[in-house]
Amino acid sequence: MRIMGVDPGTLVTGFGVIDCEGGKMTLVEYGVIRTSQAMSMPLRLRDIHLRLLEVIERTAPDEFAIESAFYSKNVQSTLKLGHARGVAILAAALREIPTAEYAPREVKQAVTGNGGATKEQVEFMVMRLLGITERQAALDATDAVAIAICHANRMARPQSRGRSWRQFVEENPDRVAGVRKHAGSGRAD
Amino acid sequence: MRIMGVDPGTLVTGFGVIDCEGGKMTLVEYGVIRTSQAMSMPLRLRDIHLRLLEVIERTAPDEFAIESAFYSKNVQSTLKLGHARGVAILAAALREIPTAEYAPREVKQAVTGNGGATKEQVEFMVMRLLGITERQAALDATDAVAIAICHANRMARPQSRGRSWRQFVEENPDRVAGVRKHAGSGRAD
Repeated sequence: MRIMGVDPGTLVTGFGVIDCEGGKMTLVEYGVIRTSQAMSMPLRLRDIHLRLLEVIERTAPDEFAIESAFYSKNVQSTLKLGHARGVAILAAALREIPTAEYAPREVKQAVTGNGGATKEQVEFMVMRLLGITERQAALDATDAVAIAICHANRMARPQSRGRSWRQFVEENPDRVAGVRKHAGSGRAD
Repeated sequence: MRIMGVDPGTLVTGFGVIDCEGGKMTLVEYGVIRTSQAMSMPLRLRDIHLRLLEVIERTAPDEFAIESAFYSKNVQSTLKLGHARGVAILAAALREIPTAEYAPREVKQAVTGNGGATKEQVEFMVMRLLGITERQAALDATDAVAIAICHANRMARPQSRGRSWRQFVEENPDRVAGVRKHAGSGRAD
């Protein structure tokens, strides 16, 4: 299965494409899309969108994963991030590629085992997991690869894929009032 | 000159296209794009984007105007609005239509003379200005027409046009990387 991870931003958008088969992950390509602050916002959004579409055409991913929003206290920043995320998600939707979202903490946890890891720690583990020996891309690119790795891990453990209600019930039986019977009757296993 | 106004939202996006020549404005078409809450966010963004592209193909506007963000205190809402705005602005950018932004207050002021007007007052004045006798569309559609009217007023008073991408390019050729040719080739004047 081929997975494309994207870490969107109005100035720098990272992307990373990996293959994962039988627990083994290999890097297909990774990089960043930089847009100039001197360009108008519509043209920057167009660049991000068209260049992500190019990566999709070139690598033909089966799945698309994106970081769920980093919630800035600054509404302007949140809105701008929303623009970039919107045109990135649109690129996957136009090519009918299923899209998953992961919180930054989840991504760090999946790659380093520590939800509070730094960007450098994430990069170190991404390079190690994929056997990359030379640093060739910006941190935003390794962040995007980390998102793809996080999704690969999720897909490999179908029982825990979706933070599903079933999983929640199984993990927190005492917190769910009156659902024990229900959870039992709805299960195929 | 033909102007397309858009009032974006993840559930309802209004659009309105008007012609304005020598101070006279006429309605070309207006309507809303509704998306279902049952659809996933990527598919809703795709719908908004593709349906706005259809309106652009059908009506061939010269200019595109959008409401600048309503800043919600809720970051989730701001991010969602950002997604919808991003794919709307992208539709105009892909067809090389210059885009302008107006604050809600500016739009209300331009149409009713009162920056604090209600949606109903805006609708009343939009219908009156364009000689519409029958209410055929939702308030989001008349809001979008109001944005187009606001832009028409601005274009009629070139000294205060402000913040349009075209004007920015004309005034700051050195600050816009590689878009001069682009701007020139997309313009009929």
